[in-house]
Amino acid sequence: MFVNFSRESFYPLRKKLNVLDIEKIIYKQIINSKIENHSIFISNISSNNIFFENSIIFIDKKIKQIPNSKNLCVLITDNLDIFEKSKIPSKFLIQNLNECYYQLTNHLFIHDDNIDYTDEFKIINNSYISKYATIDSSTKIFNNCVIGRGVNIGKNCIIKNGVIIKNAILGDNIIISDNTTIGSNGFGFDLKKLGAKSLLPQLGIVHIDDNVHIGSNCTLDRAKVDITYIGKNSMIDNLVHIAHNVVLGKNSCIAAQTGISGSVTFDDNVIVGGQAGFAGHIRIGKNVIVAAKSGVTKNIKDNSVIAGFPAIDIKEWKKNIINQKKNGHK
Amino acid sequence: MFVNFSRESFYPLRKKLNVLDIEKIIYKQIINSKIENHSIFISNISSNNIFFENSIIFIDKKIKQIPNSKNLCVLITDNLDIFEKSKIPSKFLIQNLNECYYQLTNHLFIHDDNIDYTDEFKIINNSYISKYATIDSSTKIFNNCVIGRGVNIGKNCIIKNGVIIKNAILGDNIIISDNTTIGSNGFGFDLKKLGAKSLLPQLGIVHIDDNVHIGSNCTLDRAKVDITYIGKNSMIDNLVHIAHNVVLGKNSCIAAQTGISGSVTFDDNVIVGGQAGFAGHIRIGKNVIVAAKSGVTKNIKDNSVIAGFPAIDIKEWKKNIINQKKNGHK
Amino acid sequence: MFVNFSRESFYPLRKKLNVLDIEKIIYKQIINSKIENHSIFISNISSNNIFFENSIIFIDKKIKQIPNSKNLCVLITDNLDIFEKSKIPSKFLIQNLNECYYQLTNHLFIHDDNIDYTDEFKIINNSYISKYATIDSSTKIFNNCVIGRGVNIGKNCIIKNGVIIKNAILGDNIIISDNTTIGSNGFGFDLKKLGAKSLLPQLGIVHIDDNVHIGSNCTLDRAKVDITYIGKNSMIDNLVHIAHNVVLGKNSCIAAQTGISGSVTFDDNVIVGGQAGFAGHIRIGKNVIVAAKSGVTKNIKDNSVIAGFPAIDIKEWKKNIINQKKNGHK
Repeated sequence: MFVNFSRESFYPLRKKLNVLDIEKIIYKQIINSKIENHSIFISNISSNNIFFENSIIFIDKKIKQIPNSKNLCVLITDNLDIFEKSKIPSKFLIQNLNECYYQLTNHLFIHDDNIDYTDEFKIINNSYISKYATIDSSTKIFNNCVIGRGVNIGKNCIIKNGVIIKNAILGDNIIISDNTTIGSNGFGFDLKKLGAKSLLPQLGIVHIDDNVHIGSNCTLDRAKVDITYIGKNSMIDNLVHIAHNVVLGKNSCIAAQTGISGSVTFDDNVIVGGQAGFAGHIRIGKNVIVAAKSGVTKNIKDNSVIAGFPAIDIKEWKKNIINQKKNGHK
Repeated sequence: MFVNFSRESFYPLRKKLNVLDIEKIIYKQIINSKIENHSIFISNISSNNIFFENSIIFIDKKIKQIPNSKNLCVLITDNLDIFEKSKIPSKFLIQNLNECYYQLTNHLFIHDDNIDYTDEFKIINNSYISKYATIDSSTKIFNNCVIGRGVNIGKNCIIKNGVIIKNAILGDNIIISDNTTIGSNGFGFDLKKLGAKSLLPQLGIVHIDDNVHIGSNCTLDRAKVDITYIGKNSMIDNLVHIAHNVVLGKNSCIAAQTGISGSVTFDDNVIVGGQAGFAGHIRIGKNVIVAAKSGVTKNIKDNSVIAGFPAIDIKEWKKNIINQKKNGHK
Repeated sequence: MFVNFSRESFYPLRKKLNVLDIEKIIYKQIINSKIENHSIFISNISSNNIFFENSIIFIDKKIKQIPNSKNLCVLITDNLDIFEKSKIPSKFLIQNLNECYYQLTNHLFIHDDNIDYTDEFKIINNSYISKYATIDSSTKIFNNCVIGRGVNIGKNCIIKNGVIIKNAILGDNIIISDNTTIGSNGFGFDLKKLGAKSLLPQLGIVHIDDNVHIGSNCTLDRAKVDITYIGKNSMIDNLVHIAHNVVLGKNSCIAAQTGISGSVTFDDNVIVGGQAGFAGHIRIGKNVIVAAKSGVTKNIKDNSVIAGFPAIDIKEWKKNIINQKKNGHK
């Protein structure tokens, strides 16, 4: 499902790092290290889902296993078990993973929360289009849009007015309605270290697949390391919020003002009413229907129809309402 | 209440159709037909509320009766009873109404979800104003707005920054605050046929009546065939969503982040708190007060005060909460 | 906490008023008056929180006491007790406070809901920047922004694309993400006198303190007379609404689609989940945690963890849900 992508197209590489550089940058955090190879150069980062050559992977305590991809060069982890078992050539066991991520990614990449980030624009049809963006000639961009560095837009798309698209790849036949923001940074930070400049660098992208419709004044955040993904033929209404690392299956239908928290996954054919909310890191099964105003707090099985907060089977929810009414009349 | 409007001002006519053209376009869907007059030309569409000359009317199974307007030339329906009783001169009984609507309207009109839709703009006070828009000289348009084809704005309005207005008629003395989107397309499609290019053409408009205030970052969708209407003196806060075909009576007051689904009707003097939601196709009576965060799921009588989800009389709702508390202490 | 600010930088003074002018403007509303000094000139307004020299203060029936600041020149009140006890030199006891406020402020100041309000812009980096704004040279403004009259932005801020900032003071190291609106007018009016031109003039500002992050497509309304304040290091997600006169303490963290009604106060370190709502004029204590989708209706004590609507202690809320489930199975 995932497209591969060149991180450097979106986030210019500030400087390649070798293992010695890495040691210098995070030395305050290092508990232990096993270095087999000092000569490799790092120019990318990987997540537990997508692996890149010459990259660092950051693995936290919650991860149970790490694939022994040969591409992965440097492991940064606070997970002792993974540190010991992993066959990645260069390994650091560290104290504060967020801090290491923050330092190393800011050394590696320039992103749009850095004051020295740059982009260059030309005006096409009354919109600012980055010189580093690629847009198929059949696609139409309306007025007052901004299309940023690295963005790639396929065929026959219609990007309406006031739309901002950054750090994103769009397929074919997509419609993005007015004043929507795509690819701004996810709301990811350490609650113990607040402040705008302490946001953990969000270096992933948004990938919108073919035939997707996105309404007006929506926000779709890019992933932290990977891809926020909207599956083919999905229909998204106005004022919808889709957080970083969300993955929506094909044919998702989402009514207005719904919010989907970070790392939620939808299987195919999920239908969601308006003003619903989803807690982070949950999985919604195939063909699920979520009633308007639901608050979904846990994984939902295929073919469920749910309602309420916390969301439960809609029949249960209706029964509860009738009971409440009865009790009210006692 | 409704203004009449020229659909062609907003959606250029692609081609007039005669009955033979219509037969050719929808022949796969035709079950039966009664054609009295083959020579008329069709250049418009009508709904069950507003009738235009030389138009097609699309009537679904739910409609109980159709006025015998002489203006209506062609009836497209999947409703056998209406098909037989109606006196409209040319009648088609068809299988899939959405499909016929989709095919015929796309043959008739060019709209902004078509890749060949065009508009032309001039820059006035740092905003893009369509050459086909009419704006009274007393009205002020701030920066970075887009005012599209056919839009008509009356006297002494203030359109603030980053506002998009398309497919809309505005009266006098209206204020539209920043980054609001007016007249984008409604979220109307057949759940069995998804994808951006399968949106049912939204060929209606938004009509905002005199003295209305609309806050920042709101979305007001245009109607499918008719008019999304905001009554005189209405006050709408920020981040409010108003779907297609909604009709708000005069003096509506709507607090922030409320969402009103398609075809909801408000009578006059309705007050709504923040983050409330309304299910589609319901009618809210005169002087109704809806508490914040309510989820309104059915018609509401005049002078009601309601709260909760599903919204009930506010006294009942408060009683339920007290009961819940008592039960909690058992 | 509050910065002092020059109201005239944002809202040009239309005309200074002396006591005789004031009498003429509001004569229909005057019940009683005590005038010690006819020769002073009024060029500002004060609230119960911030006092300015040569100003009028408007005090309603709910206020219990008024500080006897020597700076305050003219008192306009419908509060008999305050009228009698106050030592302000010129005092008017009036009938309709909103009407007096509306008339006098519109005589004093030009604001952006007046048709004769003006601003002048230069284009810097593809954005419209008022000639009357002050922006530190280290701060970056992206494309299609509008920065209005009087705005002051400190060092090393990043203002992304399509952002509107009016009537606001920003500190250092702030990030404002795309399509956000800051400083538009609060939703303040008399329910008995509706209509866009009847909005009570909103003549305050927004003050965003150092290191704040604000997400995409948010709305932060300016205060009516004083300051809507966002404390240092606060982190605000996408599509959040912050109404007029809200004061957020430092380290506030607010997830997406939350709405905070007028005059709510947060003490430091408050964390709020997504889609939560806050009724107006309440106070949230230090270190409070508010679960997603909560509806907070009253003051909350320090260190509370709350959930539900109306929001209660989260343990109570969970107990209620279990009870509801049990009742459902009877």
